[in-house]
Amino acid sequence: MAVSGTLWLVPNALDLGAEAVPIEDVLPLGVMRRAAALGHWVVEDARSARAFLKRVHAVVPLARPLQALEIVELPRPAKGAPTEPSAQEPRNARGAAVEASAAGRRSVQRAAAGSPSPWPALLAPALAGHDLGLLSEAGLPAVADPGAALVAAAHAAGVPVQPLPGASSLSMALAASGLDGQHFAFVGYLPQEPGARATRLRELEARSRQLGQTQICIETPYRNAAVLAAMLATLAPGTRLAISCGLTLPGAWSRMQAVAAWRRQPPVLPDRVPAVFAWLA
Amino acid sequence: MAVSGTLWLVPNALDLGAEAVPIEDVLPLGVMRRAAALGHWVVEDARSARAFLKRVHAVVPLARPLQALEIVELPRPAKGAPTEPSAQEPRNARGAAVEASAAGRRSVQRAAAGSPSPWPALLAPALAGHDLGLLSEAGLPAVADPGAALVAAAHAAGVPVQPLPGASSLSMALAASGLDGQHFAFVGYLPQEPGARATRLRELEARSRQLGQTQICIETPYRNAAVLAAMLATLAPGTRLAISCGLTLPGAWSRMQAVAAWRRQPPVLPDRVPAVFAWLA
Repeated sequence: MAVSGTLWLVPNALDLGAEAVPIEDVLPLGVMRRAAALGHWVVEDARSARAFLKRVHAVVPLARPLQALEIVELPRPAKGAPTEPSAQEPRNARGAAVEASAAGRRSVQRAAAGSPSPWPALLAPALAGHDLGLLSEAGLPAVADPGAALVAAAHAAGVPVQPLPGASSLSMALAASGLDGQHFAFVGYLPQEPGARATRLRELEARSRQLGQTQICIETPYRNAAVLAAMLATLAPGTRLAISCGLTLPGAWSRMQAVAAWRRQPPVLPDRVPAVFAWLA
Repeated sequence: MAVSGTLWLVPNALDLGAEAVPIEDVLPLGVMRRAAALGHWVVEDARSARAFLKRVHAVVPLARPLQALEIVELPRPAKGAPTEPSAQEPRNARGAAVEASAAGRRSVQRAAAGSPSPWPALLAPALAGHDLGLLSEAGLPAVADPGAALVAAAHAAGVPVQPLPGASSLSMALAASGLDGQHFAFVGYLPQEPGARATRLRELEARSRQLGQTQICIETPYRNAAVLAAMLATLAPGTRLAISCGLTLPGAWSRMQAVAAWRRQPPVLPDRVPAVFAWLA
C-alpha cells in the first residue's frame, strides 16, 4: 500500500480581480517553493490557479510545466446560494454542471456530477502517494472560501493535512480594526434582501453587545455600498465599525470609528475592490 | 503641522519559544522590506522584537542599526489575568510595573505606569511624521495578541493604519480543521479552574450547535494537555474536534475527528509547543 501524500493548503494573494501585486510582497518564499514542487492540485477555479502558478513560476520555477500539472476544480456551490456548508458534505455542491466556460478557458477536470461524494476522486492523487495542493482564488483555502469539505475528507481518509502560512483578509482586517481581537466571530455574508439584512445586522449587533464579540463579515464587492448603507442605517450610533478596503492593494485603507462618525461622512466604497467589515457594539 | 506617519502592523513568525524556522519560509519578502525600513517600533516584547529584527536583517539589511532603533513595549496585562481587553482601554493594562528582567535583557522603554492613557506617547513618533511598526511575539499583532488598543488609538488620532500580510495560527488551524470556515468564532482562552472550564466548554458547544459555528481557542502550551483532557471529558462524542500543533514548525500536525475517536486514542500534546483547538458540534 502506498504511503499517502500530504494535502498542502496553499495561500493565494488577495488581489483577485485587481491589478496583480508583486507576489513576493504577499507570499513567503517557502510557500512558493512548496507550491512549485506540487504536481497535483484541487482548486476553486482552474483559470485563477494557472495565473497563480505562473506568478509562482516567475520566482521559483515549477518542477513540471504548467501544462503537465493535474488541476481539478472543487465542486461549485450554486451561484448566489447562501454559504452554509457543512464540513462533511457542502449542501450546495452541485458537481459538474458548470456554465459555459469563459473565452480562452480550457476544459477543466471537475469532480463527477451527481456523485454522492466527490471527495475520494479528488483525494485520489494523495491516496496514491502524491502531494496535493489545495488553492482558493484568494487568501487561505477553506477560510471564508471553499475547501473545508475536502480537508474534512482528507482527515477522514487519513491523508495528512498541512496548512502553509499566508494571509487571510479577515485576520488582517481584524488586526487593522483596533476592535477586540481576543473575541471575534466571522459571520459570512449578510442576506441580500434589505429587510432580512437589517434583521440580521440587529441580531449580530445584539450578540456583539452580549458577548463582547467583534463581528466580521465580507461582501461581494459590487454590494459593498449597499451593505455599508444598511449598516449605517441599522447599527447603533455608538457601535464601532471598521472597514478595510483593498487589503494589500495599492490604495488600501482601514478605518475604524463609531457609526455616528461614519454617518457624518460616509465613505464611497469602490464596487470592484473587496472590503471587510467589522463591528463591536 | 507634520503629516502623520503610518502605523504598520507587522506579522511575526509563529516559532516563539521553539527552534527558529527560516524566516523566508513564513514571511513575505515585501513584509521584511517594510519592516527593515522602520525606525520606530511598539512591540509586545522588546527582546523578541530584537530577535525578529535580526532575522529580518539577515535577509533585508535594516535601514538603521538595531541599536539605533526606537523600540517601546506595549503596557502589559497582569500575568495570568483573563484576557478580556476592551478595544479602548485594556482592563488589565498595568503600565511599567514589570517583573525583574530576564538575564541579558536590556532596559526597555515602556509606556508610563498609572498614566490614564499610554497611547498618545506610544503614537508620538507617528504623530511626528515617522512610520511606526507594531509587532507581537508571534503572528499578527492585535489578533489573539496585544495591540488592539494601540490600533484603536491610532484611528482616533488620525494615524493611518496598514496591516501587512502574514499568517495567524488561528486562520491556519481553521483552514486545516476541515470544519466550517464560513462561520467561526475565536473565544480566547478557557478558564483554568476545572469546573469553570467544563461549564464554559458546554456553553461554547451549545453555541456551536445552535449557530452552526466553529469555536476556536488557544492555550498556554504547558496547559495543552489539561485543556485537551477537559475537552474529551466534556464535549459530546459526536462533536468534531480539530487540533493543530506546532504550526509552521518541524513536526507540525493537524488532525480532526469526532470526540469519540479522540477518546479512543488521545494524543500526547507537547507542553512547549503552541496548539490551536477548534470544534463544531
